[in-house]
Amino acid sequence: MTGASDDKKAGSGEFGFIARHFRPLAGAESLDLRDDCALMRCPEGEEFAISTDTMVENIHFLPDDPPETLGRKLLRCNLSDLAAMGARPHAYTLNVTVPRGGRHDENWFVAFSRGLAKDQQRYGIHLIGGDTTSISGPLVLSATVFGLLRQNTALRRNNARPGDGIWVTGTIGDAALGLLVLQGKLKDPSGFLARRYHLPQPRTGLQLHGIVSAAMDISDGLIQDCGHIAEESGVQLVIEADAVPASYAAASLGHDWLMQRLCGGDDYELLLTCPPERSEALQAACQTADIPVHRVGTVRTGTGVRLLNADGRETIPQQGGWQHF
Amino acid sequence: MTGASDDKKAGSGEFGFIARHFRPLAGAESLDLRDDCALMRCPEGEEFAISTDTMVENIHFLPDDPPETLGRKLLRCNLSDLAAMGARPHAYTLNVTVPRGGRHDENWFVAFSRGLAKDQQRYGIHLIGGDTTSISGPLVLSATVFGLLRQNTALRRNNARPGDGIWVTGTIGDAALGLLVLQGKLKDPSGFLARRYHLPQPRTGLQLHGIVSAAMDISDGLIQDCGHIAEESGVQLVIEADAVPASYAAASLGHDWLMQRLCGGDDYELLLTCPPERSEALQAACQTADIPVHRVGTVRTGTGVRLLNADGRETIPQQGGWQHF
Repeated sequence: MTGASDDKKAGSGEFGFIARHFRPLAGAESLDLRDDCALMRCPEGEEFAISTDTMVENIHFLPDDPPETLGRKLLRCNLSDLAAMGARPHAYTLNVTVPRGGRHDENWFVAFSRGLAKDQQRYGIHLIGGDTTSISGPLVLSATVFGLLRQNTALRRNNARPGDGIWVTGTIGDAALGLLVLQGKLKDPSGFLARRYHLPQPRTGLQLHGIVSAAMDISDGLIQDCGHIAEESGVQLVIEADAVPASYAAASLGHDWLMQRLCGGDDYELLLTCPPERSEALQAACQTADIPVHRVGTVRTGTGVRLLNADGRETIPQQGGWQHF
Repeated sequence: MTGASDDKKAGSGEFGFIARHFRPLAGAESLDLRDDCALMRCPEGEEFAISTDTMVENIHFLPDDPPETLGRKLLRCNLSDLAAMGARPHAYTLNVTVPRGGRHDENWFVAFSRGLAKDQQRYGIHLIGGDTTSISGPLVLSATVFGLLRQNTALRRNNARPGDGIWVTGTIGDAALGLLVLQGKLKDPSGFLARRYHLPQPRTGLQLHGIVSAAMDISDGLIQDCGHIAEESGVQLVIEADAVPASYAAASLGHDWLMQRLCGGDDYELLLTCPPERSEALQAACQTADIPVHRVGTVRTGTGVRLLNADGRETIPQQGGWQHF
């Protein structure tokens, strides 16, 4: 069931748990988490964009990751999918499967739900339902996130055309390097890279309908995600390695980590293609939203992804992107 | 991401897996599972009813349960929530977290998705998105299911009134007894009770708007779920134990198992309250849908749930219903 009623003994079992940690997050559409389903209406002329993701302890996050960022990361991964379609965030459901044994105690959930509350406010979303279960195993979190957009305005992956420029928001590769920092394989005294891994910044709020020809978010790594647009649009994406924007923290690690940056996942920046005549409109839209955007290559006829170095010679990515499964 | 593009090497990794097992289940709203989000519209004057559930191996199902029934059970638990609101089934998302180590091999997933396909046809639903992840732990399945209904027609839990009759569909307690059979604690040569545990029959298709005063599905056990309606409606529910319908298989086990039947979960029948003047309309609606319905008690002023035996004397349930967490 989506909702769950209060037990008469407030505070006991599942019902008290929901009342304490999740009811404060629930919007009107949740029916206060007290009924069998949530009820959600769509404004006239609009449609829902829907994304769902699961995060598993030891796979997508580390056991000692701060609980306050875990739910936020899950939300933001999905919000990034909404951003890639051009939808504005609206609501979400949350399924929490908690390891037996008490490691995730009351304090843990206070911090976890405090993180969710922060991102609800930040992105204008609310909880509409969920489920809590237990497991003899690691923590598992699933969210389904709902966005709204005008009908027929969704940004798709299948309309990139030869001649279009390839653009990315923000900086690329920080999250992959941040994971290496957290694993002790790299040093970043500033903490910037680890923060990028823990808490992505989904690029919601951009108005790109009528400007870009294709869009997706970079979750599996720039090279692999370029492959997805190439495949869906029936084109070739040519990336200029040196044009791919690096953060100060990433750049200061030197050129050795370029392939990790280009192939590593979890950035949650946007990958966009844009006809040359709309480049200025793209830059203006990003400036309005205060989001950096850089051109990193060109769409060509052909298939697959090519990566060029500073001399214009082809270089071969050493590793694929993230395989979920 | 909700969708996932085909890898160029069809059959490899996550993308081949999705193409083989889940793309055949995907409806048009899924964008063929190839984009960042699904897109879903709501017909004018209608709204979505949304329910989400997680099932965990060793908690909600057994490792040797047939794979073909697992996804169907997850869908049906959620479809039962839609039925309780009076919504008609429409679509779902599915998150599958698979144990590492290969026990869930290609054959397992062929059977799993074949089961889903059967229920898609049976209930007129389609897959719109999902996520596949791996885990060092048990199998975890989450689904979010979407139904449609006319605005302002949802059946709620909070409108039961003193004097209303209390009704249930089908027979009560079969699934709880079926679990005992599967655990070797009870014998049922017919297999009926185990089937009721493996594969509930959600009561979709009933037209109860304007007839019943409150509705919910019985997932936690009749007594506990009556408590939810009592709490939400601010009334007392008085149940006559002997009026609670038993299947032939359950009745043939004798009276000793009455409390297990009344307190055990997983039946996914409907619990309804209905003003006396609309009892005939309720029975007619159920007859039209070919769904048995029986009156099991009366709503009174007061709080909580009372259980009366055949002499009209009060009897105390020996155990609560299912606590999820």
